[in-house]
Amino acid sequence: MSNKDKVVLAYSGGLDTSIILKWLELQGLEVIAYVADVGQEEDFAAVREKALRTGAVKVCVEDLKHEFVTDYIYPALQGNAIYEQRYLLGTSLARPVIAKRQIELARREGAAYVAHGATGKGNDQMRFELSYYALAPEIRVIAPWKNPDFLNDFKGRSDMLAFAEKHGIPVGASRKRPYSEDANLLHISHEAGLLEDPATPCPEDVYSITRSPEEAPDEATIVTITFEKGIPVRVQNHTDGSEAEGAVAILRYLNELGGRNGIGRLDMVENRFVGMKSRGVYETPGLQILLEAHKDLEGLTLDREVMQLRDSILPRFATTIYNGFWFSPEMEFMMAAIRRSQEHVSGTVQVKLYKGNAYPIARSSEYALYDEKIASMDEEGGYDHTDAEGFINLHALRLKTYYRRQV
Amino acid sequence: MSNKDKVVLAYSGGLDTSIILKWLELQGLEVIAYVADVGQEEDFAAVREKALRTGAVKVCVEDLKHEFVTDYIYPALQGNAIYEQRYLLGTSLARPVIAKRQIELARREGAAYVAHGATGKGNDQMRFELSYYALAPEIRVIAPWKNPDFLNDFKGRSDMLAFAEKHGIPVGASRKRPYSEDANLLHISHEAGLLEDPATPCPEDVYSITRSPEEAPDEATIVTITFEKGIPVRVQNHTDGSEAEGAVAILRYLNELGGRNGIGRLDMVENRFVGMKSRGVYETPGLQILLEAHKDLEGLTLDREVMQLRDSILPRFATTIYNGFWFSPEMEFMMAAIRRSQEHVSGTVQVKLYKGNAYPIARSSEYALYDEKIASMDEEGGYDHTDAEGFINLHALRLKTYYRRQV
Amino acid sequence: MSNKDKVVLAYSGGLDTSIILKWLELQGLEVIAYVADVGQEEDFAAVREKALRTGAVKVCVEDLKHEFVTDYIYPALQGNAIYEQRYLLGTSLARPVIAKRQIELARREGAAYVAHGATGKGNDQMRFELSYYALAPEIRVIAPWKNPDFLNDFKGRSDMLAFAEKHGIPVGASRKRPYSEDANLLHISHEAGLLEDPATPCPEDVYSITRSPEEAPDEATIVTITFEKGIPVRVQNHTDGSEAEGAVAILRYLNELGGRNGIGRLDMVENRFVGMKSRGVYETPGLQILLEAHKDLEGLTLDREVMQLRDSILPRFATTIYNGFWFSPEMEFMMAAIRRSQEHVSGTVQVKLYKGNAYPIARSSEYALYDEKIASMDEEGGYDHTDAEGFINLHALRLKTYYRRQV
Amino acid sequence: MSNKDKVVLAYSGGLDTSIILKWLELQGLEVIAYVADVGQEEDFAAVREKALRTGAVKVCVEDLKHEFVTDYIYPALQGNAIYEQRYLLGTSLARPVIAKRQIELARREGAAYVAHGATGKGNDQMRFELSYYALAPEIRVIAPWKNPDFLNDFKGRSDMLAFAEKHGIPVGASRKRPYSEDANLLHISHEAGLLEDPATPCPEDVYSITRSPEEAPDEATIVTITFEKGIPVRVQNHTDGSEAEGAVAILRYLNELGGRNGIGRLDMVENRFVGMKSRGVYETPGLQILLEAHKDLEGLTLDREVMQLRDSILPRFATTIYNGFWFSPEMEFMMAAIRRSQEHVSGTVQVKLYKGNAYPIARSSEYALYDEKIASMDEEGGYDHTDAEGFINLHALRLKTYYRRQV
Repeated sequence: MSNKDKVVLAYSGGLDTSIILKWLELQGLEVIAYVADVGQEEDFAAVREKALRTGAVKVCVEDLKHEFVTDYIYPALQGNAIYEQRYLLGTSLARPVIAKRQIELARREGAAYVAHGATGKGNDQMRFELSYYALAPEIRVIAPWKNPDFLNDFKGRSDMLAFAEKHGIPVGASRKRPYSEDANLLHISHEAGLLEDPATPCPEDVYSITRSPEEAPDEATIVTITFEKGIPVRVQNHTDGSEAEGAVAILRYLNELGGRNGIGRLDMVENRFVGMKSRGVYETPGLQILLEAHKDLEGLTLDREVMQLRDSILPRFATTIYNGFWFSPEMEFMMAAIRRSQEHVSGTVQVKLYKGNAYPIARSSEYALYDEKIASMDEEGGYDHTDAEGFINLHALRLKTYYRRQV
Repeated sequence: MSNKDKVVLAYSGGLDTSIILKWLELQGLEVIAYVADVGQEEDFAAVREKALRTGAVKVCVEDLKHEFVTDYIYPALQGNAIYEQRYLLGTSLARPVIAKRQIELARREGAAYVAHGATGKGNDQMRFELSYYALAPEIRVIAPWKNPDFLNDFKGRSDMLAFAEKHGIPVGASRKRPYSEDANLLHISHEAGLLEDPATPCPEDVYSITRSPEEAPDEATIVTITFEKGIPVRVQNHTDGSEAEGAVAILRYLNELGGRNGIGRLDMVENRFVGMKSRGVYETPGLQILLEAHKDLEGLTLDREVMQLRDSILPRFATTIYNGFWFSPEMEFMMAAIRRSQEHVSGTVQVKLYKGNAYPIARSSEYALYDEKIASMDEEGGYDHTDAEGFINLHALRLKTYYRRQV
Repeated sequence: MSNKDKVVLAYSGGLDTSIILKWLELQGLEVIAYVADVGQEEDFAAVREKALRTGAVKVCVEDLKHEFVTDYIYPALQGNAIYEQRYLLGTSLARPVIAKRQIELARREGAAYVAHGATGKGNDQMRFELSYYALAPEIRVIAPWKNPDFLNDFKGRSDMLAFAEKHGIPVGASRKRPYSEDANLLHISHEAGLLEDPATPCPEDVYSITRSPEEAPDEATIVTITFEKGIPVRVQNHTDGSEAEGAVAILRYLNELGGRNGIGRLDMVENRFVGMKSRGVYETPGLQILLEAHKDLEGLTLDREVMQLRDSILPRFATTIYNGFWFSPEMEFMMAAIRRSQEHVSGTVQVKLYKGNAYPIARSSEYALYDEKIASMDEEGGYDHTDAEGFINLHALRLKTYYRRQV
Repeated sequence: MSNKDKVVLAYSGGLDTSIILKWLELQGLEVIAYVADVGQEEDFAAVREKALRTGAVKVCVEDLKHEFVTDYIYPALQGNAIYEQRYLLGTSLARPVIAKRQIELARREGAAYVAHGATGKGNDQMRFELSYYALAPEIRVIAPWKNPDFLNDFKGRSDMLAFAEKHGIPVGASRKRPYSEDANLLHISHEAGLLEDPATPCPEDVYSITRSPEEAPDEATIVTITFEKGIPVRVQNHTDGSEAEGAVAILRYLNELGGRNGIGRLDMVENRFVGMKSRGVYETPGLQILLEAHKDLEGLTLDREVMQLRDSILPRFATTIYNGFWFSPEMEFMMAAIRRSQEHVSGTVQVKLYKGNAYPIARSSEYALYDEKIASMDEEGGYDHTDAEGFINLHALRLKTYYRRQV
């Protein structure tokens, strides 16, 4: 790094990125702290202040919540993106939105470097760096947790505390949670600590944005969610009459409602891109409800073959997001098809929320492919039962030939 | 049909198949009634008696429960077969086992014909007939509900009642449920009646083998399920100390436990093979629990790439079963791979059952691919963080080249 | 059919559709003959005349060649559509274009019926009828070769000849080829006759638009094909200096050139949608050359992951076309992605044509993803060899864990 | 590395691996040279001699040709493994067989290390090292071309020549080909040099085991290839009466025959696993012929749905091999299904070899799924044409519903 080069650091205000900030400064770089508000609980004024006091030449705090929801979460919802059939990608979806804006800031500031505080064992480094490189192929990345000098300086937590003390970085009497957590508008994740033993149940106090089903209300809440082209546009609560509209407001509203009703918990062993399995505990109340509703509405409005085709690329779609390839040609390829599939996924779904369950109970759409007359057991509805004979005979022809051979 | 040819009829004891039995006899056929016990609630002695009185020359009642579970349900579980990401295939899995034994009986009896009472609008006709043709390519199938003569004779329910009266077929003061239902050891399904409007919530009294989550116990039940090669071999109830072992016993046990805890309900619009959408309500408590546990154990023991590959053929796997191609070369192809994948899916999963939720909370296996040392945030575990730099750089190379072109 | 209803018949001028025309008229229908020019060799004035003399109330002859190429053949080329990895879909692609215009004519004429002369054993009936129903869900289809009355009237060729004689339909001293053939701008197919034995080599005289490689010129011809977004826009012949531009002209030109050089023959056993295998012999010279060139240009310009994803849906894409689902939601889904993938498949490919071979020998593109500096064995090109170590180590991590378990 | 540790080096006898051998010795290691005969032209006695003179403590020369063919090439053939629809994987398939035996030798010799001479930019490093790690998770790999010390010592060819001279390593008045080549029983590849410009046609003299089609005989050669379960077991030459049997003999024979007839050339831009595109020229005459024949026989004997399913995983299958994951759980998963699919791919195919073309002209099998009576245009063959009506109607139902919505 040449002297007085600029670096834009993804800065959270925590101990790790504060130490990194100072360390970068000590390398002779001008550090611009980029603070993204993706919905985490945070005193952003204090974070700004801390960055400046720690040595940042500039701080940029940005509210990315709307962009996060409309450009990342809802497109993922349109494709029912679920990693390994279970994980709703709460962290994975937040990284590209931050990386994108961080790169834009680097461009505006003429910074040759960007930096982040993700470790060398996790997935987030991939999501940050692959996004950086896709959006700015010439950018140079500083990832201290993979930098031999940095790793040499900070061999353990005591080195960090000593460094913080020496440089006047407040460590905080933070109730240091023994878990590694990531929180944003979409979810909170919990890893590490005693969760590292997959055979140990997760203690109830780990969960932080959802009540346990046991403590959820004894009365169900019924909501109607309205979708347009696979995107939620309105939520109505039949139980208390409240409503939500607007991308962010809907997610917030359903987070609150879902959390209160014990919805959206997940405890699983997953596969990281770097080649290891890890155990994570997740809470994603709002998206869990939206996914159940979305899949239900697709049942009514999506063509069967499109659904099967789409579902066959789903593992790939979710893995692409999980692995950090949000900005990639394969994502563009898949999204073109997925977007096309959602053209008529419009309508409403009634979902019953109760003690951990988000259970669709009714759905309707002006674009329904369901035809009550044809489906009916009591009516012909223009359906000729004898057609089925030819249908079966020709489907059986292949089987007969095949099994005749076996005999 | 030549005189005195024999036909083996899949006979349930209900009005429809009784009328069919008599109608077949009137066509001049010797009717052998085949009664399969796949776990439905039934007085099989009475069914046998009714068949004989209605005109069957012979009745064969067979207990297929064990075969149903070991040869159909558990292989489907090994592959996580779920149709359209939701339906657990409760009816689809029962048809091939019945068809197989019906064909074997036809062979033993020298019958040239088999017959069934499934309608021309549904999926069951496919499952019966495709199985028949695969297992006995030369067999001839009589499907009265697609037969023009039969359809002409029975234009509505009144024709059926008149026919029944004329031929002394007891109609039964049956509490005629207004729904079309199919029950077996695995599940019960509900269709038709007011369920034909997808916008109408399913009345609570439709559900018959699961309590509503609201009425489920206020205390959670914790069970440990032990799998060997993807097959459940033992269930232990930590709450009351009870246990179950053996293929059928485990499913029965979990049905009871799941049903009591409100687990396994599904209300969806699905796509039938014959080209229409229909709305079904399903209760599959035991398999729902087993699937959650199985997926969880796979998280611990299945390789990442195998999981992704398997998941990408899942839609096809489930559709193959749903559409009636259990006996087919494509099924053999997929099962060969799926069976291979399950070789080390052995271990235990703890599942918490509570008011509709079957929530895995802990899992362990001697074949775990999880390595606590490597996964740990606190330990190196032989993992070199700097490896990630090269890993990312080479994964990024393609993206850089691609996006450089775009600029 | 009610009296004086109108039917639009896909009319070829051959004996079969002439008989059908008359038969439809005898059923009391007003027959409008629709004659599509998709590039087959034909005296269309004579066909028009024959239709009128045979009883058509109206004849519509249309030149569909341009539409055929731009809306069907080139989109298929963009997706490298090849059925069962071999067949270039020459007939499959021509049916939807005809069906579409036939339906438009039926609409203009207020005809309630459309009819075609495809048999009940082949694939073309599917392609016609599925297209009809997709484009006009209310249309009624008359398919004489599946109509019991028609089949009863025409049990063999002698019945047809007698009917033709009776109604003054000229049979033609046609050198009756013993093969069933379909020709259009894209290809010619040969089936039936002695080709029905797959173990019998196809006689040389069956081939009609390609010379045998043995009789092809002893000098190679070199052409440069220019593509824009996966579509050929220009062909330059380096050997004789000739050129072609324009959708139809390019295909014609390459047909001629390919045919002369013995390119594009195929002799295979394929799977029909109706459940049987059949043997076909095909000649598709122009598209064969275009496909080789297109795939080669994709090597230079298409991202690796997009290529792999696309290739994994190719079997489905080709089958969709082959089975007659050109107009379908699944086709829209796949085409959205395929079209997206072709955005930068622009550039030129040099192809050597010689005695059956269409061999790409050079390619270039301003959108190449190939970077000579990085690819070079002699230069670093910004590539850090040590990156590969981390790349391998992390890819190996999963394998080590997996195989350690096996030991 | 501790003193006197042993390393097993994959040794070719060329300059590079000779320098590596000496360099390893200078690091204080005991070097065991492992020389694999996978069919390359080589004087193995001279190679052995050279290894010893260069400092190897032991040399092991092994003939792996049979294993290479039966355990790698033919299984790949069973699955029609073709990378990016074009490349026959000639190098990719040879690496795992070498790595496997090298590891076995390391085990026998108690060597803690293995080493290879593949560069850090190519694919071979992946194939060697991933195989090493899969087969011996604890093994330590020395890859000099990624080793900073080695790279520092050898910055260019002059450093290598100086080192060779100093240590008495014969450089050879080798007609230094300006291309990077890899030859084995299966193929020869050519890269680098002027081939690095994809727009430059490959000079004719690059090709070394195939004649140009122009120089191939003017008479076609007809061979009949007999397969059992997808594996070739016999080749009969109808033109000169010669024959070949046995795994290696068949491949050799077809290489010779194919090479003489100009078959099996390929010139393409491909995607390397390390993230770049590269241009390669390949000659794979024997396997090209076998693949054409195998696909043709599958047309006759493989079920349609199995073929489509298999083809949809082919891109993944070929990529797995190409990327070096021959020994991997995903390979086991796919091979289980592929092997199952080949159970009846037995029979004979006649292939015409002529100036670059390997053209199947006839095929037969006792397991044919082709039924001449059913396929015939002239016979009913038990096929009921009216069945097609119902078949189409039910397939159309979905389309009608979908397009009615659009209107």
